[in-house]
Amino acid sequence: MTAVRQPIEYAEAPPDVRAVYDDIMATRKTDWINNFWKVLAHDPPTLRRIWTNIKEVMAPGALDPLTKEMLYVAVSASNGCHYCIASHGAAARTKGMTEAQYSELLAIVGLANETNRLVTALNVAVDARFL
Amino acid sequence: MTAVRQPIEYAEAPPDVRAVYDDIMATRKTDWINNFWKVLAHDPPTLRRIWTNIKEVMAPGALDPLTKEMLYVAVSASNGCHYCIASHGAAARTKGMTEAQYSELLAIVGLANETNRLVTALNVAVDARFL
Amino acid sequence: MTAVRQPIEYAEAPPDVRAVYDDIMATRKTDWINNFWKVLAHDPPTLRRIWTNIKEVMAPGALDPLTKEMLYVAVSASNGCHYCIASHGAAARTKGMTEAQYSELLAIVGLANETNRLVTALNVAVDARFL
Amino acid sequence: MTAVRQPIEYAEAPPDVRAVYDDIMATRKTDWINNFWKVLAHDPPTLRRIWTNIKEVMAPGALDPLTKEMLYVAVSASNGCHYCIASHGAAARTKGMTEAQYSELLAIVGLANETNRLVTALNVAVDARFL
Amino acid sequence: MTAVRQPIEYAEAPPDVRAVYDDIMATRKTDWINNFWKVLAHDPPTLRRIWTNIKEVMAPGALDPLTKEMLYVAVSASNGCHYCIASHGAAARTKGMTEAQYSELLAIVGLANETNRLVTALNVAVDARFL
Amino acid sequence: MTAVRQPIEYAEAPPDVRAVYDDIMATRKTDWINNFWKVLAHDPPTLRRIWTNIKEVMAPGALDPLTKEMLYVAVSASNGCHYCIASHGAAARTKGMTEAQYSELLAIVGLANETNRLVTALNVAVDARFL
Repeated sequence: MTAVRQPIEYAEAPPDVRAVYDDIMATRKTDWINNFWKVLAHDPPTLRRIWTNIKEVMAPGALDPLTKEMLYVAVSASNGCHYCIASHGAAARTKGMTEAQYSELLAIVGLANETNRLVTALNVAVDARFL
Repeated sequence: MTAVRQPIEYAEAPPDVRAVYDDIMATRKTDWINNFWKVLAHDPPTLRRIWTNIKEVMAPGALDPLTKEMLYVAVSASNGCHYCIASHGAAARTKGMTEAQYSELLAIVGLANETNRLVTALNVAVDARFL
Repeated sequence: MTAVRQPIEYAEAPPDVRAVYDDIMATRKTDWINNFWKVLAHDPPTLRRIWTNIKEVMAPGALDPLTKEMLYVAVSASNGCHYCIASHGAAARTKGMTEAQYSELLAIVGLANETNRLVTALNVAVDARFL
Repeated sequence: MTAVRQPIEYAEAPPDVRAVYDDIMATRKTDWINNFWKVLAHDPPTLRRIWTNIKEVMAPGALDPLTKEMLYVAVSASNGCHYCIASHGAAARTKGMTEAQYSELLAIVGLANETNRLVTALNVAVDARFL
Repeated sequence: MTAVRQPIEYAEAPPDVRAVYDDIMATRKTDWINNFWKVLAHDPPTLRRIWTNIKEVMAPGALDPLTKEMLYVAVSASNGCHYCIASHGAAARTKGMTEAQYSELLAIVGLANETNRLVTALNVAVDARFL
Repeated sequence: MTAVRQPIEYAEAPPDVRAVYDDIMATRKTDWINNFWKVLAHDPPTLRRIWTNIKEVMAPGALDPLTKEMLYVAVSASNGCHYCIASHGAAARTKGMTEAQYSELLAIVGLANETNRLVTALNVAVDARFL
């Protein structure tokens, strides 16, 4: 038993894992699987559950697909998840995010983290007009 | 000397604070100032500095104004800053955010916080294609 | 059994709790106990352990007492712990922190949270000179 | 278009970036630029904006320069930003921070993170004397 | 349109929301619904999705139900989510968590937050034996 | 003076550090010291203090040793402390944690981080029954 979980490739994956891999590739119209899913594959129920959630939440809805990916990138940048910034950043670029847009996104992430702390530390009361 | 800083109203504000209040109202085409600025006003240089930053970062640019407000709301929701969610949420609604869009935004914030932890805990290696 | 732990006052406290209360008051040269300790008192070993740690870490050392309190306030402000900001803020004020110093402290907390996110999101490599 | 932003050296930098680099070196009385600024340089308005903020917030004021750097290091250590710990740690050492002081700083950062969680989880009410 | 979402009671809920409420009550063998679900009910797909996830993740598995609830409480305490501490704390108490166990849980949450910061700030290399 | 603290081995350690190393090995019935302690050893009072805390908090009590280690792992996973996940994960495995249990633990950590954000962002009121 080792503490580090290696990616499980398609060729070595059991049927329930392959079924999720197949659905990921079909949904995303791509022919490869990124490492997140290959590592989650050590736990097939979680693999399936998280994919089901991502697929539902990121599907076309009230927000356009690019805005959704940028929101995902912004939260991941705020949390410092490098892999998530890389993977959702790539998805956002595929959907049209420019470098200028990414720069503005990061500026907002930084500024929000600054003002969030000032507001919270100063315990500012919510204005009646906001309620 | 008290630990809690009360909002400083326009009528009682010194000239340097009034100048910022005036610019906030002119820029936002509104006739009132929300509590965040009134509390920051105890420290005029910080009031001016933060307003200058918000004004620059949130100005029209590569991203449309609604997307920028929603990114601000998303980071604030992820960080649990109630005041920031209320104030930037109000701004986003003024710019057109629907409740359905807000629901999708929150779903992404929640899901990103879940997958950010899974990815980080499992120490997933960044795929070569993402670099 | 209730989920909310009420403060345990000196008069109703068992001997092991009173011993800690007595040491807090003697060390701080004060005649009262703040709520943190009175709530922790439901778990006497933790009460004693945390007090022992605070007493040791915050004792005079290489840093002067005011700087130590301000570092505590800064971390608490960054984490959004209102009680901790209030209690360590009060201690810092007692040791001489002015409102102007507190304003600068908060400005640094906010700015550090902004640049921390930019640096982490952009995955900036540590310069050789810093190693 | 690549997801990773390489540092932009002085020789290859456009005039608006060089102007900021020059001001950083003049202000800090040094002849080199650390990677943070070279990576931010992909977005010149953010480079200029963040530098303007750092320069203003970290300038001599009510707090002495060493205390300011240590507050920056403490927040960065609490947030786990390695680059920020390295860069502001180096600045603090240049301004006189000893290893014994750094050890005390880290001890406070750790302890504050412990007590912040206990206080928040236990929902301790702020004592009237602190208000 | 208001920024604050009020709980939606069973009597006023649409059929798709009632279906989830019914499943929650049947699964938990209870006759009431707590506020989390009633507020999520403004967004029925998210209500259903989150309930499906909670139901699957918290179902009997390799870990006993009490341990699972305590892990949920520990993460919520670490994140400072009062509602989550209250709701999952109540669930843990129903499953047998004693106050002494809760005290130990909180002590671990506090200590882990302390050592997590020390380890991260000091950038401790993972020992070969742990890999 | 260097910013990076190298592990201090037993052979080169001063007596007060060796005394802690000896107690760690005796308590854990092992013949080696992991890097966390060797890096903390640059600050002997903190080394002794943190070890004293770990020893007391993680000692047999109301919770069984495996549950305690898993709570430590869960908080560390939520905070993204790789070293802590590795070291406490190894301790949990030694005490009997299976990979299936670890998978469930991580699923709870991820889900709690998701629902913590939803609850906090939506500002859900604590139900009277939970108080």
